[in-house]
Amino acid sequence: MVKIAIIGVTGYAGSELARILYGHPEAQIVAVTSRQAAGKRLPEVLPYLWPIDVPVTQGVEVSVDVAFSALPSGASAEALAPLAKAGVRCVDIAADFRLKDVAEYEATYKTKHPAPELVPQAVYGLTELHREALKKTKIVANPGCYPAGALLALAPAVKSGLVRDSVIMDSKSGISGAGRGGLATSIQDHYCEADENLVPYGLSGHVHLAEISQELGLLRGGQRPRATFVPHRIPMVRGIISTCYADLADASLTTEKVREAYCEFYKGEPFVRVTPDAPSAKQTAGTNFCLVYPVVDSRAGRLIVVSAIDNLGKGAAGQAVQNMNVMFGFPEEMGLRAIAIYP
Amino acid sequence: MVKIAIIGVTGYAGSELARILYGHPEAQIVAVTSRQAAGKRLPEVLPYLWPIDVPVTQGVEVSVDVAFSALPSGASAEALAPLAKAGVRCVDIAADFRLKDVAEYEATYKTKHPAPELVPQAVYGLTELHREALKKTKIVANPGCYPAGALLALAPAVKSGLVRDSVIMDSKSGISGAGRGGLATSIQDHYCEADENLVPYGLSGHVHLAEISQELGLLRGGQRPRATFVPHRIPMVRGIISTCYADLADASLTTEKVREAYCEFYKGEPFVRVTPDAPSAKQTAGTNFCLVYPVVDSRAGRLIVVSAIDNLGKGAAGQAVQNMNVMFGFPEEMGLRAIAIYP
Amino acid sequence: MVKIAIIGVTGYAGSELARILYGHPEAQIVAVTSRQAAGKRLPEVLPYLWPIDVPVTQGVEVSVDVAFSALPSGASAEALAPLAKAGVRCVDIAADFRLKDVAEYEATYKTKHPAPELVPQAVYGLTELHREALKKTKIVANPGCYPAGALLALAPAVKSGLVRDSVIMDSKSGISGAGRGGLATSIQDHYCEADENLVPYGLSGHVHLAEISQELGLLRGGQRPRATFVPHRIPMVRGIISTCYADLADASLTTEKVREAYCEFYKGEPFVRVTPDAPSAKQTAGTNFCLVYPVVDSRAGRLIVVSAIDNLGKGAAGQAVQNMNVMFGFPEEMGLRAIAIYP
Amino acid sequence: MVKIAIIGVTGYAGSELARILYGHPEAQIVAVTSRQAAGKRLPEVLPYLWPIDVPVTQGVEVSVDVAFSALPSGASAEALAPLAKAGVRCVDIAADFRLKDVAEYEATYKTKHPAPELVPQAVYGLTELHREALKKTKIVANPGCYPAGALLALAPAVKSGLVRDSVIMDSKSGISGAGRGGLATSIQDHYCEADENLVPYGLSGHVHLAEISQELGLLRGGQRPRATFVPHRIPMVRGIISTCYADLADASLTTEKVREAYCEFYKGEPFVRVTPDAPSAKQTAGTNFCLVYPVVDSRAGRLIVVSAIDNLGKGAAGQAVQNMNVMFGFPEEMGLRAIAIYP
Repeated sequence: MVKIAIIGVTGYAGSELARILYGHPEAQIVAVTSRQAAGKRLPEVLPYLWPIDVPVTQGVEVSVDVAFSALPSGASAEALAPLAKAGVRCVDIAADFRLKDVAEYEATYKTKHPAPELVPQAVYGLTELHREALKKTKIVANPGCYPAGALLALAPAVKSGLVRDSVIMDSKSGISGAGRGGLATSIQDHYCEADENLVPYGLSGHVHLAEISQELGLLRGGQRPRATFVPHRIPMVRGIISTCYADLADASLTTEKVREAYCEFYKGEPFVRVTPDAPSAKQTAGTNFCLVYPVVDSRAGRLIVVSAIDNLGKGAAGQAVQNMNVMFGFPEEMGLRAIAIYP
Repeated sequence: MVKIAIIGVTGYAGSELARILYGHPEAQIVAVTSRQAAGKRLPEVLPYLWPIDVPVTQGVEVSVDVAFSALPSGASAEALAPLAKAGVRCVDIAADFRLKDVAEYEATYKTKHPAPELVPQAVYGLTELHREALKKTKIVANPGCYPAGALLALAPAVKSGLVRDSVIMDSKSGISGAGRGGLATSIQDHYCEADENLVPYGLSGHVHLAEISQELGLLRGGQRPRATFVPHRIPMVRGIISTCYADLADASLTTEKVREAYCEFYKGEPFVRVTPDAPSAKQTAGTNFCLVYPVVDSRAGRLIVVSAIDNLGKGAAGQAVQNMNVMFGFPEEMGLRAIAIYP
Repeated sequence: MVKIAIIGVTGYAGSELARILYGHPEAQIVAVTSRQAAGKRLPEVLPYLWPIDVPVTQGVEVSVDVAFSALPSGASAEALAPLAKAGVRCVDIAADFRLKDVAEYEATYKTKHPAPELVPQAVYGLTELHREALKKTKIVANPGCYPAGALLALAPAVKSGLVRDSVIMDSKSGISGAGRGGLATSIQDHYCEADENLVPYGLSGHVHLAEISQELGLLRGGQRPRATFVPHRIPMVRGIISTCYADLADASLTTEKVREAYCEFYKGEPFVRVTPDAPSAKQTAGTNFCLVYPVVDSRAGRLIVVSAIDNLGKGAAGQAVQNMNVMFGFPEEMGLRAIAIYP
Repeated sequence: MVKIAIIGVTGYAGSELARILYGHPEAQIVAVTSRQAAGKRLPEVLPYLWPIDVPVTQGVEVSVDVAFSALPSGASAEALAPLAKAGVRCVDIAADFRLKDVAEYEATYKTKHPAPELVPQAVYGLTELHREALKKTKIVANPGCYPAGALLALAPAVKSGLVRDSVIMDSKSGISGAGRGGLATSIQDHYCEADENLVPYGLSGHVHLAEISQELGLLRGGQRPRATFVPHRIPMVRGIISTCYADLADASLTTEKVREAYCEFYKGEPFVRVTPDAPSAKQTAGTNFCLVYPVVDSRAGRLIVVSAIDNLGKGAAGQAVQNMNVMFGFPEEMGLRAIAIYP
């Protein structure tokens, strides 16, 4: 059994980790931390987790094999650094180890990096793109929720040169992507503000664009594309649909040809599925799946790719457990076989 | 034109007042106040109110004919007291003038009443029960949202002695009933906590029971009934359905007889309608209507009455404007003729 | 491995069965039926079930150990009768075997019973009330979704005589309780009609009252109570909250005493939990749990009990799998350990 | 008073027309039609419209000044043609008179046009683009809901040549855009399928692209752009957000310059507002407003424009009443001054 710490358990990614790991046959949750809830038992804070009756502590006070951090960016690397240096495997669900260029991190997140010396050994944890490196690393930089969906939508096309250097990603996310906040939360997350509403945001630049550009650049031999990314808040709890647009490199490409390339790219992947029809968000609720659907708009000479994920699954906690499985040599699907909760 | 102040404009009742009064032909909004937003223009705080481009101030700094207060209880009477003493007509949407017994108020709301000397002249503002007194008063105690719906459901039966002294009110409210909060809000109002959820609360006693008991007692010649009231939070923005249960005084009473009594009681009322079928919350959205549906459960010897209101309409701002119309001798429907937004 | 047929797989109870059984270590889904979808593969009809790639057939054409039927009432007994007679264990999620009195069934459901000769051997499948009989039966009458929640709320109080003979059950259900319908569905289930709405119904009598009365009667030595039951449609997909009211037999009973009785009654039950605070619907989403919260309203001399279930879990498919586990001697929690999907 | 017929009153556009026209001081609803509901009174079919107690008829059986048709495409022109020929002013909310090229109409809607001879005199009813022609026409082709929002987002940029010939429109619509259906409705509109879901559709071509292309072409001197349009179903009742992308003609253009052009283009328009921040869908609920927000993504050399409308307001019934006001010489805002229902 792998002994596990969840740092920042009361947020939505942290509590989803607890939910998933409770059903993982090789996982044993031995420590959960929260600054606000330290001193209580976990079910006193989150009653629906009553089967996981462990104490909430300020920090990780027992010996663990792997630590997941779901703290805010900045705080996360600070909490993980001593553990990483003590040999504990670390999965950072925050953004702190995603950008290879520390200066870009600091400009993007407007904070000083608390552990820049650890950045080089971290691996970007989109398993489908970096599986071999993940097997060997001690520090995983779990992808952002938007990048997970957008990169899996575009990776095959970009890698194979099916599209030009200009991409647009129009993403729509459920409200849980904004996080839980503490005892009080932002007015924009108030039920009455978010319900029956739809809010575009980040129009002057969203932090996730940096890691998307980095990874798309790597797929193109280092050259970053001309990328536009616009996220939208949708009145649902979970799910991200990313609708991606790119001009075709060759206007004669057909949907069939593109689908073949996508199926080839994702052959054998347990969690990515090229779907026969446009996927919907609900088809991924509670799962670690990413559904991808490419289609050619031949009139306009464009490729459109839709991807669907659960932002707390493949976009956060599910992806994190998949990475743990890779690191520890477990079958990749272990603990992650759930089918979507539908309806 | 009546010159109007809205005290506490940024909450949901306050902004609904602004919306309704903007369409009222005899109303002119000349002052809106908010502690947090003072110094800005109203549309800077609430962009959808851009047609009402007035400055937000700390207090009421201009001469007005009527002041509506949508402040929290306690703060409301404090803000209204000097205006009332200066002869301004006041409509208090908070609870401060609802209970005739100041000691009961202080025990219920766990606060000292800031202006007990004004309580005797205040009239409980459920127009259908106190119309004549409202015509003459300077201080209206607008009913609570739950009491508005529950009292209109039960008043005919209680007044006419159709039921015994024991009543149960099971109420279901949209989340806007919890208020907007300030810049930060309670975690229970977070979209992800309230959506796809249903939460009973107040099981050890809800403050609204006091005014319900007071008013039902008045209808029964002063004797308060044995009343149980349980509210529930429902994942919708607006609307309250109250399902009320009481044992029939005479087990041979039929639905037809009870309906007759209800129709008679509400004859000529512009905003209460005895419906032919069970009403739904959406049928009242954005309106000042109360839909009432009584039915006899003859097997169990019980009367069941369902009422539907918009908690921000008949349960708050709409009722307040109706009371203003009564006070100023305007037709009661003025500015309140809107049909439900449906769907 | 137990070989399983799901009859009527495309409805919400049927597809939830498929989802749960896919994760059950002793279950093998070998047949799924649907009149409309016969001839297709299951994922062609319900794409999110792509990991369960079995053919949909008209009837059960292979040998099975247990058949679950999620057909409408009437059709269900007709489909199960030949299987039951051939020795297949049957779990009927429809209403056909719930009422021990065939005449009452026919009056309630306004249809002739297709297999009255099987009724005597069927056992009402609320495991907590009939576990021993369920171990020996071949036909399980899975409870209705409302009765499951209401009975678990009231059973301890009724059985122990804590309350008088009069009970009121005010239940609130997510829309999935209305079923999926076929290719077309009822206008009241249209998103735009159900969303931001709340609809009381069944005010002149709901079919589920019959089985509630039967079971409460059994708990009281055969004497049926004076019961009123009013269901409400709530704008959420899953979940039922039942708020139950009954006059205390002894007005001096305290919440503590009642809680003790409830904890004793449910001691050792894996799926019923007496909660320290009022439960909410979301705490049961995707699970087989029933959360029960009794509280005394001492002013009114009444007991209030709230229960929460997932109508597709403990209210349908989860309960059905629990019953299968009992019938086959598996640990009762097998395949049913999931914690709530939250948020 | 203008005497009005609403043809197809029971759909969402038809009933929204009734709601708006009830509050219009110069309008008198004298006929409402519905094939399914003929013979009943309007409130028997749609109870929330009880203040509009008129009979529902099969056809328009009384003399009217203007007829609005909210029938499906094809049926609409058939119903309007005899009225138009008799001199009645007609506003077609269906698609039948939008496309100037009848062959394109027939290819797009896969139906024969029932009254091609009337097409030349019809005017495309996006008031902001065709106001002068609308003043003189007898037949208004009210725009589709998606085109209304997308065209108002792009018109200033396309007309002024700020962008190149390639545009992408990623639109997100509430479910009411799919229509109400009759007594039964499509499974995809079932609450449990649409809620907590997000569904891209029309990926192989949506009928609304034809009228968007026609109108954008007119703005560019006849040359149609290379346009891609992808609609998405969002779990909310009302509202469309269109996020539009186009490469800048001149990469040095700033947000300020573009905003100036937009403000100039819409100067004096009562229903279009260039907003200081990104608009949200809820800010338009129940109104006839279109909120437009252009912003330059200078890194990518692109213009992004977001527009927000209520699909039943500016996207259907509100726009139709605005056109009626233009046709009859009423002030354009008459009956349309409502501020958004918020929250």
